Amino acid sequence: MIEYRNLRIALLGAGSVGAQVAHQILNHGEELAARIGAGIELAGVAVRNLDSPRTADIPRHLLTTDAESLVLGADIVIELMGGIEPARTLLLTAINSGADVITANKALLAHHGPELFEAAAQVGAQLYYEAAVGGAIPIIRPLRDSLAGDRVTRILGIVNGTTNFILDRIDTLGESMEDALAIATELGYAEADPTADIGGYDAAQKACILASLAFHTTVPAEAVYREGITDITREQVQAARKAGYVVKILAIAERIKDADGVEGVSARVYPALVPDTHPLAAVHGANNAVFVEAESAGPLMFYGAGAGGVQTSSAVLGDLVSAARRHVVGGPGVGESTHANYPILPIGAIRTRYQITLSVTDEPGVLAEIANIFREREVSVETLEQKTYGSDTTTPTATLVIGTHEATEADLAATVAALEASPVVVGVASVLRVEGL
Amino acid sequence: MIEYRNLRIALLGAGSVGAQVAHQILNHGEELAARIGAGIELAGVAVRNLDSPRTADIPRHLLTTDAESLVLGADIVIELMGGIEPARTLLLTAINSGADVITANKALLAHHGPELFEAAAQVGAQLYYEAAVGGAIPIIRPLRDSLAGDRVTRILGIVNGTTNFILDRIDTLGESMEDALAIATELGYAEADPTADIGGYDAAQKACILASLAFHTTVPAEAVYREGITDITREQVQAARKAGYVVKILAIAERIKDADGVEGVSARVYPALVPDTHPLAAVHGANNAVFVEAESAGPLMFYGAGAGGVQTSSAVLGDLVSAARRHVVGGPGVGESTHANYPILPIGAIRTRYQITLSVTDEPGVLAEIANIFREREVSVETLEQKTYGSDTTTPTATLVIGTHEATEADLAATVAALEASPVVVGVASVLRVEGL
Repeated sequence: MIEYRNLRIALLGAGSVGAQVAHQILNHGEELAARIGAGIELAGVAVRNLDSPRTADIPRHLLTTDAESLVLGADIVIELMGGIEPARTLLLTAINSGADVITANKALLAHHGPELFEAAAQVGAQLYYEAAVGGAIPIIRPLRDSLAGDRVTRILGIVNGTTNFILDRIDTLGESMEDALAIATELGYAEADPTADIGGYDAAQKACILASLAFHTTVPAEAVYREGITDITREQVQAARKAGYVVKILAIAERIKDADGVEGVSARVYPALVPDTHPLAAVHGANNAVFVEAESAGPLMFYGAGAGGVQTSSAVLGDLVSAARRHVVGGPGVGESTHANYPILPIGAIRTRYQITLSVTDEPGVLAEIANIFREREVSVETLEQKTYGSDTTTPTATLVIGTHEATEADLAATVAALEASPVVVGVASVLRVEGL
Repeated sequence: MIEYRNLRIALLGAGSVGAQVAHQILNHGEELAARIGAGIELAGVAVRNLDSPRTADIPRHLLTTDAESLVLGADIVIELMGGIEPARTLLLTAINSGADVITANKALLAHHGPELFEAAAQVGAQLYYEAAVGGAIPIIRPLRDSLAGDRVTRILGIVNGTTNFILDRIDTLGESMEDALAIATELGYAEADPTADIGGYDAAQKACILASLAFHTTVPAEAVYREGITDITREQVQAARKAGYVVKILAIAERIKDADGVEGVSARVYPALVPDTHPLAAVHGANNAVFVEAESAGPLMFYGAGAGGVQTSSAVLGDLVSAARRHVVGGPGVGESTHANYPILPIGAIRTRYQITLSVTDEPGVLAEIANIFREREVSVETLEQKTYGSDTTTPTATLVIGTHEATEADLAATVAALEASPVVVGVASVLRVEGL
């Protein structure tokens, strides 16, 4: 191997992950160089404000607000600024100027992944993004390379640590949603505006990335069906636990056939009931886990810390060493594969099981009436349990918990609408999907 | 991208994994080609005996007993024959004739990995071995690439499905070692001669591979300390469960300092007590799991099917797609990194906790005598429990279960020897290490 000049690394962003990546390059540069087979040099760190406080010290002379100039002189660009712009433009500039690029930017990949992949393929640039999903957990390479010869059928991912932390506290400590969210905010797991997490937006971007990768298909970010955890109550979580389930918000990517037999991909995010014996049920706190089912490999699970600056820096630096090793030995980046390009199926085409809790008037003939509503919409009831009697209304009411066989979202939605319109139904308290069976 | 002639794939071996790999290439060739960006063609399958029964049909004209000729005409050689020779010579021939190579051969990698890596580096050949450890579980790429920028501190792996199956049956069903082994044999999990599994030899080869990879160090196969499960009894497993532990045979790779402060690598295999709350404790049946601790990433776990022809073929085909993609775009293979080359520390330098069960005479002063034996060898006692009184001897005896703080293997061995020589000790029933704390 020839003696190589130092590889120049440009870092965009010095938030919790970026500051840690800078710290590691500055303090473990020799070890990284030994693994790479060439020296590396942190050429600079682009920031918005030179004076912002950082979680790790970065020498002042490395900081710059001129991201574009930094990018133009780099061999490898690491983008950790987040958001769409200027990240997108800077990465395209980097790729077109001959640099290899690394990003942890899930929003950018979900919305502009195909554009970036295409730009990289045009010039043979490498593009790595192990940190975009699952923080420190290696999940991108396993899906992209290790499982590249298998046929993934389904991915169930706990990919948002904040919401898993909140749901776990409700489940294990009996806290209310409000209290659990307050603790998450206090501990720094939740942002001041927690919408991206509890609304399921963050998880939806990750579902988009996972579905694209696993099914060799371009999945537009807007095609991901999304529900957050804002409507989940302590009562639901506790009732689920008693029934043998844990409530988890899942990013789901699935290859399925719709009612017409058309094979397609579904990418969706919602809180669901997971059997308490499922490996995902044991994922506590802010941890992440991705459960992958493939035709040959069978079920696999990848588990670890899904967030945190130090933890996520591990994935970024793994990408840096990978990109740098290839840079040194030569040869272009291997592009993304979208050869399958399955149609993206709407949520109405999904088949899953449901658990529906509703309150009904306690009169003769009610059960037959309810059963009819399900039967007419071709939703088959698997279990029916009458739970408690309410005495807070003038009419005596009963609570029914109904578990269904697999049904389509469309049929289920029609059933729920009919239930709500029925004179014997006082109210539909909860509709939750069951996943992981 | 230029139109590419079909890549010629040579397959060596048609056992349970090989037959499945052939089946997948023959039946999903177009899908694999789409992912690769070039056609692939199964040039032939080298077997020892043309007429042996196979678990999947391979057209007769593809079978050959002339492995060398097959290798010489191939772009990519997949070695699934197992054993050292002729696998080693054939892979070296393949590498030197310009082919990329894939192997699942853990024995070959443990004993001749450095020779193969060096040969591949000389000519820029790619060498992949995802299937060598953990069957279908992606663990090689995560360690080699995703964690390449982190510093792994410890790996605890359940990497042998047969012994996990046996220990799990003893634990969960209360079977004896003999009965559990008989069932494992009947179900095809254990070979007719189960020595490689229950003796820990298979796990030791995998520990060697994992330690080499995680610590960028050449670990000779002979340097792996090894104990099998043959001495484990149902009584030990049941006592462990009562004490809050599960007995698992672990492949351990660890970066530690010895008593003189020398940083080195330990690779070892033995049955150990794992806290029942540890994620590894929940790995049942013939499944595998690799628990990795790294400085930045923190704890990670990779879980799935560790064996089986169909499952393992997933890892081999992932390697095939990876190697073929690179073959198409050009650029040499990225070699293995052994830049650290830590010294390999002997088992005596290892510090861990122990649980020792011994039977003592039930007389005044015995506890003081036992405590002295530990203190004199600098092994600190953390817990001491007097369990049951035996009445099967003329002298009344008591059973002591002693948990130690961390101690070196050398000090512990001296302590056990002194216990065995002590007049107050009737016998040392069990010495088990505790891991995963």
